[in-house]
Amino acid sequence: MKEKGILIVLSGPSGVGKGTVRKAIFSQGNTKFEYSISMTTRKPREGEVDGVDYFFKTKEEFESLIQQDKLLEYAEYVGNYYGTPVDYVRDTLDSGKDVFLEIEVQGAKQVREKFPEGLFIFLAPPSLSELESRITTRGTESDELIKNRMNEARKEIELMSLYDYVVENDQVEVACERINAIVQAEHCRYNRVAPRYIKMLEAE
Amino acid sequence: MKEKGILIVLSGPSGVGKGTVRKAIFSQGNTKFEYSISMTTRKPREGEVDGVDYFFKTKEEFESLIQQDKLLEYAEYVGNYYGTPVDYVRDTLDSGKDVFLEIEVQGAKQVREKFPEGLFIFLAPPSLSELESRITTRGTESDELIKNRMNEARKEIELMSLYDYVVENDQVEVACERINAIVQAEHCRYNRVAPRYIKMLEAE
Repeated sequence: MKEKGILIVLSGPSGVGKGTVRKAIFSQGNTKFEYSISMTTRKPREGEVDGVDYFFKTKEEFESLIQQDKLLEYAEYVGNYYGTPVDYVRDTLDSGKDVFLEIEVQGAKQVREKFPEGLFIFLAPPSLSELESRITTRGTESDELIKNRMNEARKEIELMSLYDYVVENDQVEVACERINAIVQAEHCRYNRVAPRYIKMLEAE
Repeated sequence: MKEKGILIVLSGPSGVGKGTVRKAIFSQGNTKFEYSISMTTRKPREGEVDGVDYFFKTKEEFESLIQQDKLLEYAEYVGNYYGTPVDYVRDTLDSGKDVFLEIEVQGAKQVREKFPEGLFIFLAPPSLSELESRITTRGTESDELIKNRMNEARKEIELMSLYDYVVENDQVEVACERINAIVQAEHCRYNRVAPRYIKMLEAE
């Protein structure tokens, strides 16, 4: 009657600081979730270790995994593949541990389709709420600049709608605290807790 | 564009320790939510202060409030009325602060009907998971005892289904931590955050 782990997906627009927040979360000693290491075909950079920073694969190996449907999500950037091995994720969740993915928005969209029960957290740039105060305290910036920012914000807000939670990355420590609270809360959600109790009764 | 406060409802079977958990939460210096003081027609006990422990009312005053639909929920116990004044709750939520109610399950049901967007937390007795281990490590207890406990558990699990979260009251401090995490997480939920951003764009 062990509870399955939760798949936690942290994503957001590029440049928002996903990697920084992820590293800060895992540098805390008490982190209870497992980080899912990505797979890539790009060459290791100096100091990078296979199985720690990435699983380094050849293009042929990667494409074979795609064909076998062994990737939870993948994408191509500048001629290299990046992806998440699905077996590691499933095995870890089955063992009752939460798995943490830090991925691009396109990847998150793929994961949402395969794992709708995952916990999707959108890391939002503080520029969104800064924009809010800029709009209300007008006068200091050109209309053109505001308009560009508004268009940028519109795109970010559209992206958000696939997510369960929105965490503003105003301060890294605060963002980490919010993410930890979200995961802790999620473990208490009725939909996750009740099945365990109901199974207990049915087992009789 | 101020965000409205969240109505937090803590409830659970009688004897589970709702009052103890509520007091522990409010004894923490950093509590960010407001406690909604109940109204009652019972006489003040020694040391109880009107407007602190309860709002003390006459039966006539209370029944007049019922008729004016000024109570979010109410119930009668041993000849006395107990209820939650709705104006205080609405005004505090409108001012952007979270309101915390600690009420009986019947009251929580009434609140769910009037405030479906509230945050409903069920405080569960640790006996539920104790029961789980008892079932799996059989032999030490009579079948009759187990059966009675199962029936009790069945009722409690049925009650749960109206709630968003289930927090086990195994240790008061841990239960408080979970409740605080749930409230913090709830403030990050897409459904609560996005409208603020969307309004910001529409305001343009």
